[in-house]
Amino acid sequence: MKTKALGKQTRVLNCPPAVIGSACIVGQKEGEGPLRNEFDRIAEDSYFGQESWEKAESAMLRESLTLSCDKAAMSAASLDYVLSGDLLNQCISSSFALRELAVPFWGLYGACSTMAEAVGLGAMLIDGGFADRCAAMASSHFCSAERQFRTPLEYGAQRSPTAQWTVTGAGALVLSAEGSGPRITHVTPGHIVDAGIKDVGNMGACMAPAAYETLRSHFEDTGRTLADYDAVITGDLGRVGHELLCELLAGDGVVADERLTDCGMLIFDPKRQDVHAGGSGAGCCTSVLCGHILRCIRSGEWKRVLFAATGALMSSTSALQGESIPAICHAVVIEAEGGRRS
Amino acid sequence: MKTKALGKQTRVLNCPPAVIGSACIVGQKEGEGPLRNEFDRIAEDSYFGQESWEKAESAMLRESLTLSCDKAAMSAASLDYVLSGDLLNQCISSSFALRELAVPFWGLYGACSTMAEAVGLGAMLIDGGFADRCAAMASSHFCSAERQFRTPLEYGAQRSPTAQWTVTGAGALVLSAEGSGPRITHVTPGHIVDAGIKDVGNMGACMAPAAYETLRSHFEDTGRTLADYDAVITGDLGRVGHELLCELLAGDGVVADERLTDCGMLIFDPKRQDVHAGGSGAGCCTSVLCGHILRCIRSGEWKRVLFAATGALMSSTSALQGESIPAICHAVVIEAEGGRRS
Repeated sequence: MKTKALGKQTRVLNCPPAVIGSACIVGQKEGEGPLRNEFDRIAEDSYFGQESWEKAESAMLRESLTLSCDKAAMSAASLDYVLSGDLLNQCISSSFALRELAVPFWGLYGACSTMAEAVGLGAMLIDGGFADRCAAMASSHFCSAERQFRTPLEYGAQRSPTAQWTVTGAGALVLSAEGSGPRITHVTPGHIVDAGIKDVGNMGACMAPAAYETLRSHFEDTGRTLADYDAVITGDLGRVGHELLCELLAGDGVVADERLTDCGMLIFDPKRQDVHAGGSGAGCCTSVLCGHILRCIRSGEWKRVLFAATGALMSSTSALQGESIPAICHAVVIEAEGGRRS
Repeated sequence: MKTKALGKQTRVLNCPPAVIGSACIVGQKEGEGPLRNEFDRIAEDSYFGQESWEKAESAMLRESLTLSCDKAAMSAASLDYVLSGDLLNQCISSSFALRELAVPFWGLYGACSTMAEAVGLGAMLIDGGFADRCAAMASSHFCSAERQFRTPLEYGAQRSPTAQWTVTGAGALVLSAEGSGPRITHVTPGHIVDAGIKDVGNMGACMAPAAYETLRSHFEDTGRTLADYDAVITGDLGRVGHELLCELLAGDGVVADERLTDCGMLIFDPKRQDVHAGGSGAGCCTSVLCGHILRCIRSGEWKRVLFAATGALMSSTSALQGESIPAICHAVVIEAEGGRRS
C-alpha cells in the first residue's frame, strides 16, 4: 500500500492542494517588526476589543479565518473542515473561535508546530478525497501564554537570554482541491524527540533536535538538499535553537547558508526589539507563513519552500514534576504554481 | 471532488481499515464496574507504579499502545502514525507516552471525543493511501483531571447530582489497511455546538446537543436509522446527557430504544458505585470501545455499531471568565468483518 509514501516519513500529494486564501493578524509589537507590512491587520492593543487576553486571542483567530475566506471569495460555512489548535489549556482559543461556525472541526495540539500539522493533515484529507476545502489555523498571544505557562505579567519576571518572546498573532489559510495559489506538495510529519533538556526558558534548545530529525528525514526521503529550496524555514527555534540546528546539520556535512532561517528570527528585529532569543508561539510561524512566506511565493520571489514548524510538548505541570521537554517538528513543502525555477 | 462524501458531513471509506489490535487499562473503580472482565488490565492503585497521577496516566497510555501492538503481532515502531490526545493541559499524557517512540505523531485535542477523532482521522489517512497502519489512542485519569479541572482531591469537594466521574483509563487500537478485524466504514466528524450552558458540573447537558447534531447528520447523510445499528453508543453523556439526547431525538420523531446507550452509563454501576450521573473523560469511551464494544463486535454479538464520542471544549480559564461550554461529537461506524447480519 502506501502508494503516496516517499521514504520513511514523507508523503507526496498526488493532486497538491492550493492555498486559495490566507490572512493573519498580529499584535502591536509584531506590527513594529521587520515584517510589519506583510500582516493583514495589526491589533491596536493587547485586548483586541475583548475583555480578556484569552478572548482577544480567540477573536483574532476567528477574524483571521473570516479574512482568509474573504480572500478566497468563499464563505467559511462552505468549508468542509477546519483544523485548528493553539497553546491555551484545552485549546480554547480555537474552540471558542469556531463555536458559531457549523463546520466539522478537527482539534489539534502540536504546540508551536500546530500550523504545520494543520496544513499537512488538511492537505492529506483533500488529496485523499475527503474534502474539497479545509481551513488550517493557529494562534498564540503573549499575555495569555505568559500567565498560563510562566508568571503573571504584573510580576515583571526577569527573562533569561535564551528565552523567546511569545508572538501575539493568529493566522488562517484555506486549502482547496481546485483553484490556484501556492501548492502543498509534500508532508513530512515528525516524531517526538526528547533531548533531555529541562530548561523551560530555552525552548530553542529543546526543539532544535526535533527540527534536525524532521529535516534529515525529509532530505533523506526526497533526495533533496537545502539547495533544492529557495528557503527552509523552521519555526520557532529563535536564534539559540537555530544555531544548534546549524551545528547538528554540520555534523552531517550540511552547510547551512542563508536559505535556512527561522520564523522566530524573522518576526522581530533583535537590535530594536528586546525579545532575547527571538519570537515563539504557535502564532509566530503561523503569522510568518500566512503573512510573509506565502506572499514571497505568490510574488515569484520564492518557488519552493520547506516550512518546518517546531513545538515543545511540555506543560507547567510536567515542568514542575521535573520532566524533560519533548519536542516535535512537522514539515510541509509549499511550491509556487507552475513549480520551481531551476 | 469529494468522491467519498455521503451527504454533508459523512465520509465513506472505500477500503475500510480493520482494527487489528486493541487494548485498554483502567483504574480500580472501573475494574469493579459492570465491564470489569472486558479490560486488559486493572491498575492496582491510582499511581500505576509512577510518582504522580499525570505520569501514571501517561504510563497507562503507553502500556495500552504496547499491548494493542502485541495483539496485532507487530512492533509499535512499525506504525506509520500515532494519533493521540488526552485531557491534561498541553496533552502531556500523550506526548510523554510517546517520547521514546520514533513514529510520526499527530497530536489531537477533542476533549472526551478524542478517541473518535483519532479513529476517524487515522482511518481516513489509511484509506487515503497515506499510511498502512496507525494507532489511535486516548486517556484520562480521575485524579489528574480533578486537580486540573476542579479542586484538589484533598479538599473533598461536594459533587452535584449532575456531575460525572472522570474515568481512570487508557486505550489504544491499531488500524490497518490489511489484516482482519472490525472495520471502520464511515466517519462523521462533528462541528462545535454551544447550547449556552455554563454549569461545569453538568457536562452531559453541555454535550447532548452536540451528540444530537452529529447523530442527526449521520442519519440524514446515510439514510439510516437507529434500527440499522445493533448499538449506537455515545460517550460520555452519562445519565443526564443521555436523557436529554433522547428528548432531542424524540423531537424528530426518533424513539430511542435500548440500542442507544452511552459509555458513561455502561462503565459504572449506578446502584453500587457512587458516580452520580455516570462516567466521563477521554478514557471512558476509549476503554469502553477498546474493551467492550470491539469485543462484542469480534464475538459476533454486534455486527454494526455507531460510536459517537462527545467532548466539552472548555477550560478552567474559560469557565472562570464566564464563558458557556462549547461541545463536539465525532462519530465512526464500526462493522464486523463480513458486514451486518440481515
